[in-house]
Amino acid sequence: MTTEVERLAERLRDFARARDWEQFHTPKNLAMALAGEVGELVAEFQWLTPDESRALDEAAFGRVRSELADVTAYLVRLADLLDVDLIEAANAKLLENERRYDSDLYRGSARKAPPLTS
Amino acid sequence: MTTEVERLAERLRDFARARDWEQFHTPKNLAMALAGEVGELVAEFQWLTPDESRALDEAAFGRVRSELADVTAYLVRLADLLDVDLIEAANAKLLENERRYDSDLYRGSARKAPPLTS
Amino acid sequence: MTTEVERLAERLRDFARARDWEQFHTPKNLAMALAGEVGELVAEFQWLTPDESRALDEAAFGRVRSELADVTAYLVRLADLLDVDLIEAANAKLLENERRYDSDLYRGSARKAPPLTS
Amino acid sequence: MTTEVERLAERLRDFARARDWEQFHTPKNLAMALAGEVGELVAEFQWLTPDESRALDEAAFGRVRSELADVTAYLVRLADLLDVDLIEAANAKLLENERRYDSDLYRGSARKAPPLTS
Repeated sequence: MTTEVERLAERLRDFARARDWEQFHTPKNLAMALAGEVGELVAEFQWLTPDESRALDEAAFGRVRSELADVTAYLVRLADLLDVDLIEAANAKLLENERRYDSDLYRGSARKAPPLTS
Repeated sequence: MTTEVERLAERLRDFARARDWEQFHTPKNLAMALAGEVGELVAEFQWLTPDESRALDEAAFGRVRSELADVTAYLVRLADLLDVDLIEAANAKLLENERRYDSDLYRGSARKAPPLTS
Repeated sequence: MTTEVERLAERLRDFARARDWEQFHTPKNLAMALAGEVGELVAEFQWLTPDESRALDEAAFGRVRSELADVTAYLVRLADLLDVDLIEAANAKLLENERRYDSDLYRGSARKAPPLTS
Repeated sequence: MTTEVERLAERLRDFARARDWEQFHTPKNLAMALAGEVGELVAEFQWLTPDESRALDEAAFGRVRSELADVTAYLVRLADLLDVDLIEAANAKLLENERRYDSDLYRGSARKAPPLTS
């Protein structure tokens, strides 16, 4: 069965091919494009307090959603080129971290360990 | 039906909750974590030529896959907090760009327009 | 008179030349290296509250100082390659912003305008 | 004697104070702003070949210079808040690297070691 990530990857592939933009889509260039988009995403949050970042107004939410879309597109395109299954890779990493960061030992502390992944 | 992205989001949610790390997972902080991981990803490619970036050796590929996993985890976690469907948002953006960048007009040129999304 | 930035640029130039690393120091690659280092800097602050980020402990301060050194080195090296005077460019931009963001009009508001530069 | 970096830091301090923007200028927020600006800088180079990045046309050069100015402004402002002397820190790091990366041993290889700093 084709997943939604695979379908998006395919559509991005077609989009690039139709414009003869595959020549620009090296992993190096796509990693840069991803960094550029993540920079725009970070900029949306830079002057907000952590609490404000949880309660975006409609305009900010729209901009953030749009940046998340761009980040997703470049990430999926990059992974497609490298033949990496993002969801599988993330699940594998999470399994490692579930073992590494014992839930009792690390409870409530961001100092002992970087949350989620490292 | 639950998608693979939703299942990953749920697992990340559980992971954070079990360690009482939800307090650290504000959108602001997660955007920073995402930027940090993308920085590590970019660093993997920084001294490679575009061609070399297409043909990673096994060790480099392993590191890149691991960074892609981290980027995915933080991206999915951030989108989950904001209640954004990443795939839907990326598809909507792509539809816009399919219209905006006519495939005949923009063929072969990275100068006229930023490929994929803007 | 040679400024301290110029002296650092010269020393970085010599460092690269002595190792025959000038071939890797294209503006594209150095911009990536800069992004990688800024990612590490951001990661130092990601789980801290804004207040905590003002009062780093000694270990965190040492790491942040080291990342700031790396960011500075790549920034100065990149500017040297492009023949940009960073301080002059920053001063010119600041002059623009002093005019653009009237101090009475924009007082206390991060919403109306991005502080410092845009 | 006051250096040009110190004078810029002072001017940025006055700029922020006059607008009552010091409240937004926590190290955490400034690190994010720096990441945002570096993202814009990287985006300028993303579709260029390494060679093209050495020979920017006038328009691209102007945009890159402007981004370098923004990066410099946020970097100097952040360092000022943390009371870090950027040039001194970069020189200290470079001294370490001059010792660590013997110029004969590492000649011509970006694989053995990350050039400039690590």
